[in-house]
Amino acid sequence: MASISDIPDIVIGRLPIYLRALNLLVQQGQEITSSHELGQRLGISSAQIRKDLSHFGEFGKQGTGYQVRHLQAQLKQILQVNREWPVIVVGAGDLGRAIAHYGGFIERGFRVVAMFDNDPTKIGTGKSGLKVMDSAHMSSFIQERGIKIAMIAIPAAHAQSVCDTLVKAGVRAVLNYAPITLTVPEYVRVQYIDPVTHLQRMTYYLK
Amino acid sequence: MASISDIPDIVIGRLPIYLRALNLLVQQGQEITSSHELGQRLGISSAQIRKDLSHFGEFGKQGTGYQVRHLQAQLKQILQVNREWPVIVVGAGDLGRAIAHYGGFIERGFRVVAMFDNDPTKIGTGKSGLKVMDSAHMSSFIQERGIKIAMIAIPAAHAQSVCDTLVKAGVRAVLNYAPITLTVPEYVRVQYIDPVTHLQRMTYYLK
Repeated sequence: MASISDIPDIVIGRLPIYLRALNLLVQQGQEITSSHELGQRLGISSAQIRKDLSHFGEFGKQGTGYQVRHLQAQLKQILQVNREWPVIVVGAGDLGRAIAHYGGFIERGFRVVAMFDNDPTKIGTGKSGLKVMDSAHMSSFIQERGIKIAMIAIPAAHAQSVCDTLVKAGVRAVLNYAPITLTVPEYVRVQYIDPVTHLQRMTYYLK
Repeated sequence: MASISDIPDIVIGRLPIYLRALNLLVQQGQEITSSHELGQRLGISSAQIRKDLSHFGEFGKQGTGYQVRHLQAQLKQILQVNREWPVIVVGAGDLGRAIAHYGGFIERGFRVVAMFDNDPTKIGTGKSGLKVMDSAHMSSFIQERGIKIAMIAIPAAHAQSVCDTLVKAGVRAVLNYAPITLTVPEYVRVQYIDPVTHLQRMTYYLK
């Protein structure tokens, strides 16, 4: 098995897609799959899938395919989502609330444990169990709970300073919904969700 | 200048990121930039940026950098966002509503013109100018207005059938928030937003 640094991040980026497909197969009660079938479902070549998985060991035998539940368990372990990560959401606007209440996190390794905002009219509002907390308490919350993951859903103008605060408090992975590229130390990971960049990537191809 | 098919999609995918950075520079009143400065801001090498842009012609001279507004205008033209695309949102749950009312589309080439749902308790609700419409009218709306772009924000179980309906009606670009890979004809583009895949890509690296 290769060490972390050997494996290209683009390969790591495909593993959650494979895992998502396997989750669906499990739901559908399917026990065996193949790189060919996964490839068909995902629009990825079967050779690519086999090569990606080969970084992490042997998961199937030639001609017999993959055991769906076994491969699912292995991918969860590799991605470290065979546990539940506590996550905080910064920003309690429409988007932040929609993210915080999204039902799809729990079964895939994540639980939103707190939502923060600095707007006094928002603090204290929200559904029970996930009331909006004052940003002033964010750093201590992160430190006390050992939070490693945060989602940023605030305007671009404030995203970098919030990110700096998060990192200083101990956050090591940031999912940024603000439409701006963040600067972070090397030991911190950032992923971006900006619907406009996705849309613009498609309009290029529209006649 | 290269033809569409010559340019790798990964290059196209970076252009919206460059455009976003240029928009910010324009807001900040900066007139000249360089591949070095853009690279620093975006965590991309300056050589990569120059190479990406070289697919589309000459935008700067050695040693003098790029005119920010000129490069911004050129990228908008290349990405075809020097116009306003009408977009529909399918699904009027928390996420669909948050997307539909997101303020960041207009100035970057997109306008949400309609939101659809098949839930009778949701149809007719919503802010004025963007009331939730009955999905039964979706196909005719797409055809009459010539809609090419749709965002899907419904549960995974129904996403493929809704996508099929969209494509049949004329949609050619789908931004899919449902956590499932969609199957579409070759002439249709799909982009995905699934926060969990982004989070799982980062937990791999967490100690």
